[in-house]
Amino acid sequence: MPKFKGVIPPVVTPLTEKFEVDYPSFTRVLENLIDGGVHGLFVLGSTSEVIFHDTAVRVKIIEHAVKVTNGRLPILVGTIDPTTDRVIGHSRIAKSAGADALVVTAPFYTRTSQPEIMDHFRYIRDAVDLPLVAYDIPVCVHVKLQRNTTVTLAREGTVAGLKDSSADIENFRYVMRDMADQPDFFAMTGSEIVVDNVLKMGAHGVVPGLANVDPHGYVRLWNLALAGDWEGARKEQERLCQLFEMVWISLPRTSAGSAGVGAFKTAMRQLGIIDTNIMARPQRSLNADETARIEAILLLTGLKR
Amino acid sequence: MPKFKGVIPPVVTPLTEKFEVDYPSFTRVLENLIDGGVHGLFVLGSTSEVIFHDTAVRVKIIEHAVKVTNGRLPILVGTIDPTTDRVIGHSRIAKSAGADALVVTAPFYTRTSQPEIMDHFRYIRDAVDLPLVAYDIPVCVHVKLQRNTTVTLAREGTVAGLKDSSADIENFRYVMRDMADQPDFFAMTGSEIVVDNVLKMGAHGVVPGLANVDPHGYVRLWNLALAGDWEGARKEQERLCQLFEMVWISLPRTSAGSAGVGAFKTAMRQLGIIDTNIMARPQRSLNADETARIEAILLLTGLKR
Amino acid sequence: MPKFKGVIPPVVTPLTEKFEVDYPSFTRVLENLIDGGVHGLFVLGSTSEVIFHDTAVRVKIIEHAVKVTNGRLPILVGTIDPTTDRVIGHSRIAKSAGADALVVTAPFYTRTSQPEIMDHFRYIRDAVDLPLVAYDIPVCVHVKLQRNTTVTLAREGTVAGLKDSSADIENFRYVMRDMADQPDFFAMTGSEIVVDNVLKMGAHGVVPGLANVDPHGYVRLWNLALAGDWEGARKEQERLCQLFEMVWISLPRTSAGSAGVGAFKTAMRQLGIIDTNIMARPQRSLNADETARIEAILLLTGLKR
Amino acid sequence: MPKFKGVIPPVVTPLTEKFEVDYPSFTRVLENLIDGGVHGLFVLGSTSEVIFHDTAVRVKIIEHAVKVTNGRLPILVGTIDPTTDRVIGHSRIAKSAGADALVVTAPFYTRTSQPEIMDHFRYIRDAVDLPLVAYDIPVCVHVKLQRNTTVTLAREGTVAGLKDSSADIENFRYVMRDMADQPDFFAMTGSEIVVDNVLKMGAHGVVPGLANVDPHGYVRLWNLALAGDWEGARKEQERLCQLFEMVWISLPRTSAGSAGVGAFKTAMRQLGIIDTNIMARPQRSLNADETARIEAILLLTGLKR
Repeated sequence: MPKFKGVIPPVVTPLTEKFEVDYPSFTRVLENLIDGGVHGLFVLGSTSEVIFHDTAVRVKIIEHAVKVTNGRLPILVGTIDPTTDRVIGHSRIAKSAGADALVVTAPFYTRTSQPEIMDHFRYIRDAVDLPLVAYDIPVCVHVKLQRNTTVTLAREGTVAGLKDSSADIENFRYVMRDMADQPDFFAMTGSEIVVDNVLKMGAHGVVPGLANVDPHGYVRLWNLALAGDWEGARKEQERLCQLFEMVWISLPRTSAGSAGVGAFKTAMRQLGIIDTNIMARPQRSLNADETARIEAILLLTGLKR
Repeated sequence: MPKFKGVIPPVVTPLTEKFEVDYPSFTRVLENLIDGGVHGLFVLGSTSEVIFHDTAVRVKIIEHAVKVTNGRLPILVGTIDPTTDRVIGHSRIAKSAGADALVVTAPFYTRTSQPEIMDHFRYIRDAVDLPLVAYDIPVCVHVKLQRNTTVTLAREGTVAGLKDSSADIENFRYVMRDMADQPDFFAMTGSEIVVDNVLKMGAHGVVPGLANVDPHGYVRLWNLALAGDWEGARKEQERLCQLFEMVWISLPRTSAGSAGVGAFKTAMRQLGIIDTNIMARPQRSLNADETARIEAILLLTGLKR
Repeated sequence: MPKFKGVIPPVVTPLTEKFEVDYPSFTRVLENLIDGGVHGLFVLGSTSEVIFHDTAVRVKIIEHAVKVTNGRLPILVGTIDPTTDRVIGHSRIAKSAGADALVVTAPFYTRTSQPEIMDHFRYIRDAVDLPLVAYDIPVCVHVKLQRNTTVTLAREGTVAGLKDSSADIENFRYVMRDMADQPDFFAMTGSEIVVDNVLKMGAHGVVPGLANVDPHGYVRLWNLALAGDWEGARKEQERLCQLFEMVWISLPRTSAGSAGVGAFKTAMRQLGIIDTNIMARPQRSLNADETARIEAILLLTGLKR
Repeated sequence: MPKFKGVIPPVVTPLTEKFEVDYPSFTRVLENLIDGGVHGLFVLGSTSEVIFHDTAVRVKIIEHAVKVTNGRLPILVGTIDPTTDRVIGHSRIAKSAGADALVVTAPFYTRTSQPEIMDHFRYIRDAVDLPLVAYDIPVCVHVKLQRNTTVTLAREGTVAGLKDSSADIENFRYVMRDMADQPDFFAMTGSEIVVDNVLKMGAHGVVPGLANVDPHGYVRLWNLALAGDWEGARKEQERLCQLFEMVWISLPRTSAGSAGVGAFKTAMRQLGIIDTNIMARPQRSLNADETARIEAILLLTGLKR
């Protein structure tokens, strides 16, 4: 059986007006997810603005999440940085701080080949004894984890699972087919939008940033899928598709990065979960007009009345 | 007058078999460049494998370079990391360690807009009082510093100069045209191959990784250009073009990243400047066959006999 | 109700050793599809190697398909060429020759904006009175039909449907959501691999090149989906996923274009449907080794024994 | 000696309000170029909107150019279409109509490999006995003619020359180096902006769309380069860089395609060379505001007073 399954949201990292982590709000983010019934937590993912935080801040974030969670749920930690030995450094710290698994991307900034990417994961797995999840996110690292790369790493035991944020659902299906005889392997999607579909295909988990806004929705979707109620799952997914429209509101005033997580933070502030919608620098936070449009979506989708 | 001009190579960082910085070799790299007559040093650039080194290693590299150089040449330091506040952290350390200027790219991993990129440079300039050089390297950060972005930042005084590693010589020409009335601004090319051309266009400096192998060649080229001997400059450039062929030797066995700096390191080892051609993980170092082909190029171009 | 629905394969165009259309084989291709129970035919699509055929050949292909089909099924015709007035020329001919609908891409070779792409479809719709299907195939035309472009054209009545070969299933879902109140609009996928999923989402049709090899499989999949037997649909889709593995066999000896349609043609030859596996120039046809591997897949998937 | 050298502009194709070729204006375009002292004409290039014209129109355009030119200059003809046999069709017609050479791109719409691209040129060269020029324009065909592809084709005699519109000046330099021992081979740049540089590198010709607006400028630049007056060449080039700023005026209201040739047409209309600035459909023509900005540039650069 896969070690991790179900809804495992990437946890938003709330900030203060001074661009520091707002720990009281962070506690509420975590409790809101746990209350919502999620099955695990993914701390320091892209949605957590991991790439904006240095080592010192990252360790505090992990420790805070571990303390608040207090064993109620497994915690996967993203140890995301450009190159192998730096990732190993973060990974050792994450293990010490209580991580249950590591989530790692291909190298970035540097240009690497698929064989070098395989070595990257092998070096990390050799250095730190925790389950390793391959994180396929070409929009950030500008290289795709090819089917053969993922499957080779999985079959040799280097990676325990895949988190696919590539939107390449066809490749994802083939990876799951290739690994069908390995019941320990888990395949998770980073999509918010086609979760019903990938669960129908056999995926083991879902890692939706939008679950920070509506954990209950994704847990309902998971349970409907588990029960084989695919029509119910489709309807819940369609409601979440409507909610997800928030991520385009601030375009093109802001970058796509700011627009997505910025919308989640704004919605969470409007729902009383966090205190500010501040984004890490140099990103832009959503403004009042954009907030009003997010309010409208929250009303439409039943999250506010 | 521009504060920095001439040949300012990005300094190769030699490693030991244990993937640690080989400081005795590093000293020889620096002395070889200074002996070669270069006009400045760019420490911790892409060619220096900056992205593979964490904060602790970076500070030692800067301090070593400052100590060895001992004021003989200005030292520009790359403070390259994905996001604004992390770059500010590196930049403060670089200033303390003796940097004369900072070289900074657009954010990466995160997706940013041109206005957010402008803010990125402004936040850094506000935080650390050193001349700031915009480093345009889309092959690594996957976004172009657009003409308007560079020129706006330059005219408002945020950036003092541009290092263009984008291979977009047409955009580079327009930036120089736009800044022609600002004699303090400096435009440097990262190309090894069209140096004669960009100097003819009016560029103030050149930052060729290949100068680690042949500093005398690039200094000769600079002096010929300075003297207006464009035919001589072309001939020297053509010889350096032949030398530069080394960067494709290990393709596709290695990535392009490994192939380029890996070739420089291999040539430097064969010339007795450094002890190993080891590349930072997960990159691959050049093998014996590839070394033999590099030897052949060194003979052809007169660097070995 | 949408005018077109169900399985509407892009019809392979068999060639002789002299690179001319092999009409006796073409008749067998059409009859094989009709016997297989498909619901419509898409002649002169990308899989038909439309782009290799000039006007004179195209008209003969349409006329032959119309004659053989003899009203048994609707015929959609791709009138694919780089620019508006050339597409109008092809479209007029297609209408005269008996097409029931036109399938048109965004302009290519020329660089166009989304507003210009909208005008492109409007000019064509104004010039030729047949239902117009927007064909979204960025891998060929290097521009995406954005959600707003497709929906604007659909709501104003310019296009009657969408054929999505973009692999962007998330965008496809949003287009279907936006058009949910327009029962005449039809959304068809060009994917061979996620047909069960897009039908579950509400798509009206599927246009799989692989149906030339196994029309019965896709018709079974369609009927299972229609009956709401999603588990059965998934199993049939998984068998077709295995069959689809043929499209990577000749890589990298051939281009991706040659590899895909070349594999279909080779399989069809081995199944006795067509006489040669010749590809239009300058593409490469599959060789004997590659044919042996295709035979193995045909055995594994039950198409041959 | 190369068969073709000097300034060989791609000739703008003026249109009437009904989107038909305006032959009286076309005559004036040709005479203006010949009066300007250019050394050859490139008819039916990208700047000529070749891709918008079908076979019937193309043959008239060639015949008109041949008749007007009446042997005063060599005429290169672009026979640009997506695939091999269609290009052969255009090429036979071009030869009959009096072309002195053919200019051909890599295939497009279809995805081709470099070996298939080489075969494409070989099939064409075998079919039509005229000098063949390889046209490297990745912005339109979305594939680069790699150095090895061009050089292999050139050394075996398939192509007589290269027209490089790739903006990859480094690759262009290496191709010229590789062919330096073949005096018959000619390398031409499609750049308007770095002509002084590529001539300094040894290029044999220049194919600037902007020469339709200012043929005298490019001929002066050529003559200064020929005389070895590189400082004079740089100054003339800088003036032409200022003139070239016109190509960005209508962005983002129009596509980049419309913006560039649309600006040339607008300037030519303002200079009295042609009657309209109409662009082929679905492109957009420049409007009155944009025309006013072009007028300003014509004044600044001395073309109007």
